[in-house]
Amino acid sequence: MSTAVSPLAPTEVPDMPVISGVKLATAAAGIRYKGRTDVLLAVMEKGTTVAGVFTQSKCPSAPVEWCRAKLGRGRARALVVNSGNANAFTGKTGRQATALTASIAARALACSPSEVFLASTGVIGEPLDATKFNGVLGALAESAVPGEWMNAAKAIMTTDTFPKVATATVKLGKAVVTINGMAKGAGMIMPDMATMLAFVFTDAPIAAGALQSLLKSGVVDTFNAVTIDGDTSTSDTLLAFATGAAAVNGAPKISRAGDPRLKAFTKALRTVLADLAEQVARDGEGARKLVEIIVEGAMSKGSARRIAMSVANSPLVKTAIAGEDANWGRVVMAVGKAGEPANRDKLAISFNGIRVASRGARDPSYDEAGVSAAMKNPKIQIKIALGLGKGRDRVLTCDLTQEYVAINGDYRS
Amino acid sequence: MSTAVSPLAPTEVPDMPVISGVKLATAAAGIRYKGRTDVLLAVMEKGTTVAGVFTQSKCPSAPVEWCRAKLGRGRARALVVNSGNANAFTGKTGRQATALTASIAARALACSPSEVFLASTGVIGEPLDATKFNGVLGALAESAVPGEWMNAAKAIMTTDTFPKVATATVKLGKAVVTINGMAKGAGMIMPDMATMLAFVFTDAPIAAGALQSLLKSGVVDTFNAVTIDGDTSTSDTLLAFATGAAAVNGAPKISRAGDPRLKAFTKALRTVLADLAEQVARDGEGARKLVEIIVEGAMSKGSARRIAMSVANSPLVKTAIAGEDANWGRVVMAVGKAGEPANRDKLAISFNGIRVASRGARDPSYDEAGVSAAMKNPKIQIKIALGLGKGRDRVLTCDLTQEYVAINGDYRS
Repeated sequence: MSTAVSPLAPTEVPDMPVISGVKLATAAAGIRYKGRTDVLLAVMEKGTTVAGVFTQSKCPSAPVEWCRAKLGRGRARALVVNSGNANAFTGKTGRQATALTASIAARALACSPSEVFLASTGVIGEPLDATKFNGVLGALAESAVPGEWMNAAKAIMTTDTFPKVATATVKLGKAVVTINGMAKGAGMIMPDMATMLAFVFTDAPIAAGALQSLLKSGVVDTFNAVTIDGDTSTSDTLLAFATGAAAVNGAPKISRAGDPRLKAFTKALRTVLADLAEQVARDGEGARKLVEIIVEGAMSKGSARRIAMSVANSPLVKTAIAGEDANWGRVVMAVGKAGEPANRDKLAISFNGIRVASRGARDPSYDEAGVSAAMKNPKIQIKIALGLGKGRDRVLTCDLTQEYVAINGDYRS
Repeated sequence: MSTAVSPLAPTEVPDMPVISGVKLATAAAGIRYKGRTDVLLAVMEKGTTVAGVFTQSKCPSAPVEWCRAKLGRGRARALVVNSGNANAFTGKTGRQATALTASIAARALACSPSEVFLASTGVIGEPLDATKFNGVLGALAESAVPGEWMNAAKAIMTTDTFPKVATATVKLGKAVVTINGMAKGAGMIMPDMATMLAFVFTDAPIAAGALQSLLKSGVVDTFNAVTIDGDTSTSDTLLAFATGAAAVNGAPKISRAGDPRLKAFTKALRTVLADLAEQVARDGEGARKLVEIIVEGAMSKGSARRIAMSVANSPLVKTAIAGEDANWGRVVMAVGKAGEPANRDKLAISFNGIRVASRGARDPSYDEAGVSAAMKNPKIQIKIALGLGKGRDRVLTCDLTQEYVAINGDYRS
């Protein structure tokens, strides 16, 4: 398996500021990987609220079920994440592992197990030996410090080739609040709620219900608009934690998502989510091209989304892009198979701004050499104009390379 | 692009008997390929009935639209098939090309253009120069002979690595009738009605309406239960022609699909369709494994089909099989993402008869070495028992290899 960093990795990594009320620590618990960290503990101050969105899989992982069950109280003191084992389809053993992990963390932090949130990523179906967290979580609770964002993002990686972080600073009332996020992605990515694992932290004092609303609407055009391979994970988890520590600087306490004072915060949160989601697409397994699919002129946004996803998940479109081939015929195929309203004779398609097809046929100005040159770009935008209505949507994906097949042909071995 | 024959090709090719009332001829018209045949003319006797099922794509090819429009009369005298160019998304030019092709054939055979059926396969979006058929079709009409089945199946190939034929002989009344079929497949295969191109011929005297009913129900568990890559083509076409020539041997004229005398014929037709469909799966682009997905215990057959297709189209399941990895966790993922009723704690999964998972966790008898050995087999059966109801279905697919990516990264170049 290649360990080279994706050529699509962001060239600049932001300095991740401290979030007051959050401390982080990582360790190598030997879950699966050798010689690298594989467990993250985030410790939050009392009063921290939590919100989450999860996979829509009918076979969710044990940690997803744990988080769903604990979310109702809206209170969090800790987040424990491990990589290497997803604790999914592990039956009763898996449920015992989540309970044990939470109780070990709760003992270390003198909180209730129900205030401990869990996420696991890695192989499905292997029992997770949670006794490995004994001692480890206690030590992490003591060593946790505010600034360890990059190490935290590294500890949750699986086949990711770079850690994914994003940050934003924004005014809430008269106070400045901060939003930090991290994510891991790589494969089994077509989030039907949130992707694999992503965590967002803020010092803004936002009630759990309001935070939940913000998160739910925030994922629609960010994490839910990304696909690597159309394979929705059993473990998709996006959790947001709000410590409220900015209240001491005068940040107003927010109880409703509709509060007009949240406007800038909502926008900044969306920017952080979109940034992380794009990084997930940039680190798709084996990816060499970042692909943006824009569908406009559809009958509705939902219809545009389904058409964009049909194109984004088409192996033939994705392999053509890997081969730097502007094979717009395959885009037509993928539009046609989506089952959504589409009229061949009104369809127009462009690659990186060059129109290749219009009115149901090759564009009169079609220039193979010009399009071929454009396809060498590491970022490919496919714009599809349906000419039917006002529905518009955008989805991010990557190409499908031989490297993807190689990575996934021997992931377990 | 590899030209080696798929290792999954059938070891025995049937002798294709003559179908009274059908003559075949092939030629190299230079549509796209060099040094091989790329056009097939099938000439049928007067009185031949026709039925067809086509792609459900919203952007169908010009020949699909042509056939749909002509099917109502139920009469056929000729079939013209070309490979190398799909005449899809070719706009007005494409419609002109179908009309011109049909009129050239009609002139050669002294029939009406509406009795000429057309199919094209190959690149999408390139104008098809139908003037290349001038002369060619006239010569073919003169040279057509009854026995050329293998050459016919070869002329319609694109990235196929072997010609696909099947035959059956069955009693209708007191007469013996024959059913011959041919197909081409390879890529862009998840038929939503019929796959790419397939043609069935019989000498049985069956009215067009009855033939249409037989065909429509015949594809449900044959062509519609095959997927290579989840990409439904713009050109999927399955046509059946019944010359009625067996009437002179005493075969009864059949006007209704429900006629009890059709029982053996219906079964034989389904066998031919299933045989061709399996050959399509065996010749999936880059395929090294034939994969059979059986879902049982679902809430309905439809639900079982959707779950089976979710597994069959999962890149992660398909790459694991290519890597000979019994990664049943990915099967769980694909069941979970299907959106159909499924209860993780009742799920059981087996690979080639070896149970790997039961009751929501790894099977107690799980033996990695035994399963790994089974995965070396060129045929992999994945059985998924949901334990919910009586719905059952079966889908055929193949693995996803680096060769698939290589073939499709440079198909046009």
